[in-house]
Amino acid sequence: MAAKPEPGRDDRSVGLVETQYLTFAEPPDEMVLTSGAKLGPITLAYETYGQLNPARSNAILVLHALSGDAHVAGRHTPEDRKPGWWDEMVGPGKALDTNRYFVLCANVIGGCKGSTGPNSINPATGKPYGLRFPVVTIQDMVAAQVKLVDHFGIDQLYAVIGGSMGGMQALQWAVAYPDRVRHCIPLATTHRLTAQGIAFNAVGRQAIMSDPGWAGGDYYGGPGPTRGLAVARMVGHVTYLSEEAMRLKFHRKLRPDQESYHYAFENEFQVETYLEYHGKGFVGRFDANSYLYITKAMDYFDLGADWGGLGNALARADARFLIVSVSSDWLFPTSRSRLLVQHLQAAGKDVTFVELQSPYGHDAFLLEVEALTALIEAFFAADPPRES
Amino acid sequence: MAAKPEPGRDDRSVGLVETQYLTFAEPPDEMVLTSGAKLGPITLAYETYGQLNPARSNAILVLHALSGDAHVAGRHTPEDRKPGWWDEMVGPGKALDTNRYFVLCANVIGGCKGSTGPNSINPATGKPYGLRFPVVTIQDMVAAQVKLVDHFGIDQLYAVIGGSMGGMQALQWAVAYPDRVRHCIPLATTHRLTAQGIAFNAVGRQAIMSDPGWAGGDYYGGPGPTRGLAVARMVGHVTYLSEEAMRLKFHRKLRPDQESYHYAFENEFQVETYLEYHGKGFVGRFDANSYLYITKAMDYFDLGADWGGLGNALARADARFLIVSVSSDWLFPTSRSRLLVQHLQAAGKDVTFVELQSPYGHDAFLLEVEALTALIEAFFAADPPRES
Repeated sequence: MAAKPEPGRDDRSVGLVETQYLTFAEPPDEMVLTSGAKLGPITLAYETYGQLNPARSNAILVLHALSGDAHVAGRHTPEDRKPGWWDEMVGPGKALDTNRYFVLCANVIGGCKGSTGPNSINPATGKPYGLRFPVVTIQDMVAAQVKLVDHFGIDQLYAVIGGSMGGMQALQWAVAYPDRVRHCIPLATTHRLTAQGIAFNAVGRQAIMSDPGWAGGDYYGGPGPTRGLAVARMVGHVTYLSEEAMRLKFHRKLRPDQESYHYAFENEFQVETYLEYHGKGFVGRFDANSYLYITKAMDYFDLGADWGGLGNALARADARFLIVSVSSDWLFPTSRSRLLVQHLQAAGKDVTFVELQSPYGHDAFLLEVEALTALIEAFFAADPPRES
Repeated sequence: MAAKPEPGRDDRSVGLVETQYLTFAEPPDEMVLTSGAKLGPITLAYETYGQLNPARSNAILVLHALSGDAHVAGRHTPEDRKPGWWDEMVGPGKALDTNRYFVLCANVIGGCKGSTGPNSINPATGKPYGLRFPVVTIQDMVAAQVKLVDHFGIDQLYAVIGGSMGGMQALQWAVAYPDRVRHCIPLATTHRLTAQGIAFNAVGRQAIMSDPGWAGGDYYGGPGPTRGLAVARMVGHVTYLSEEAMRLKFHRKLRPDQESYHYAFENEFQVETYLEYHGKGFVGRFDANSYLYITKAMDYFDLGADWGGLGNALARADARFLIVSVSSDWLFPTSRSRLLVQHLQAAGKDVTFVELQSPYGHDAFLLEVEALTALIEAFFAADPPRES
């Protein structure tokens, strides 16, 4: 896919981009998942920005979070209202500088943005998988990404980078494929969720599965669990914001059309309107079953479990690490990142750690562009891509 | 109602107790609510423990939280599996010592435990109110409690005490009726919810109102929004627990019958089973419409708004204050209590402030019995009930 900047429009944009597809694991060579189940064929939807250098040493794999997709930067059509989800970080002269790096990102398996997931057609039945889709793990997501990296003939990624669930994948890459990752940048993440994290995910899943429209997962062709998914998203949304961010943005302000309490069960506070708006908007762009599968994958992830403890796991890594937490992130708090740093240091690894001072909570990894850019540029400058 | 300790069973229990009822505001003398709407007749369900002294100077009014009721201590029948919700704090020799104090508690209006609320019969229609029940506020709840205190001929309460929403009521009592409160003990509370607090309440309400079983509030006679109410309770429940409390209790432990991941969409982690169990249990003992009304009352509460600011409001109080926060309470954090303390001190009030060091989060006000008992006994000892 060629990135075509439109002259005069935005010279720091990758311009118009197109989603590509890679299909592999065709039967009888299905991929064997962590659970032991087999999945195939598998399609990954992906996008790339910039050019792979002759040495194939300048590739950066971006790993998306729960609701993300392969469309990181640029626009699919000139009319697109919004660019990709991390456009401010990927482009000419940006942190992931497409003049220097070949940036790629794939939608995770289990997702609903073009990669194989519960809304894909089950070749065994000719109908959407629904809950017959096998449960996938972070390990499985990364194993599928390995196929994409192989497809490009890339032996070693210059960097893997992602926030939240993307950070889990970055850690998994560095530990499970140590010779294939030169830099690892996990943002606002953890090696495993706490009970509180699992609890919030479980509440979201209950909201979806409690909606009669969910119908055991076989709702394709109908509206599906629209209200349950909106509630799940609202729960998640509150956890991604800090108390401070919500206070700064909303405090106790009423809706603009309202001067005093109405004493009724409509939304009255701006924060209510905001959450409901975004909850309902999410329904139009996300599949409820994918929400179930992806949150489940996050719950299962426990980086140390496969390698006899977190210390042993991280000792496997060969990458340089840049670990970033956010001061106001209460869902993936700084203490979780510190634990990673301590184990990496104990194993003698090259690790840089920064706690971003930001009021924006977990979402800060999407918002604190300037600070992240400075950190990443300095981190990369110390060890640029090899020319051959 | 006479408290009848059963000899030999538990000499620190108030024993068998009975819920009593007081009805007032009979038409045409309905109570005018904050909203301007009229409500009547109003029934309050209440319980009392201990004896009112001749000077009527030893009465303590307990104020319950969102899901509480009038049944604070003792048992209704010898077979009751559990005593009242604060039994460890109310009884002979306990913090609220029924050998010394006359303790009373009423279910709030808008509730579903015997006081007039949305599940009560609307005299205008002969059917349950449902959403035709007027929106009530913390101010209205307290105004109704004033009638109960009047009924006992009590001019001044020795103390008002409550946690969370009960603490809001305690503050409202001390500010709106300064001559009627001698001691005010707000626990784990705030003078107004933050945007985050409103957000979590709004998500709970959305979960209920999204359940087709809610039927616009007219579900009485049917099962009602059982799944939506369970989800709402699960959301609330997570917010009442600290990350630390959940880690200590559950960490990432799987269900006892499970040794490894099942890779399926059943509950697998103990924290999931626990939340779902309590969510479903809540449905059997709470009315979904009451959940809507009571959370709305909490959202509206803003102690300073009626009196030209929080400082002015608290300057009205004549009570001695004992304010207690919980170190791990992130829903009503210590900073909220400190704000109250600062304004009370600026106004020259008698205020004692303690941050309880506890891992139990918001729920600690129900759990840290020993610490609370010591604090309350010392606080009361300095200023015991007058004999005449």
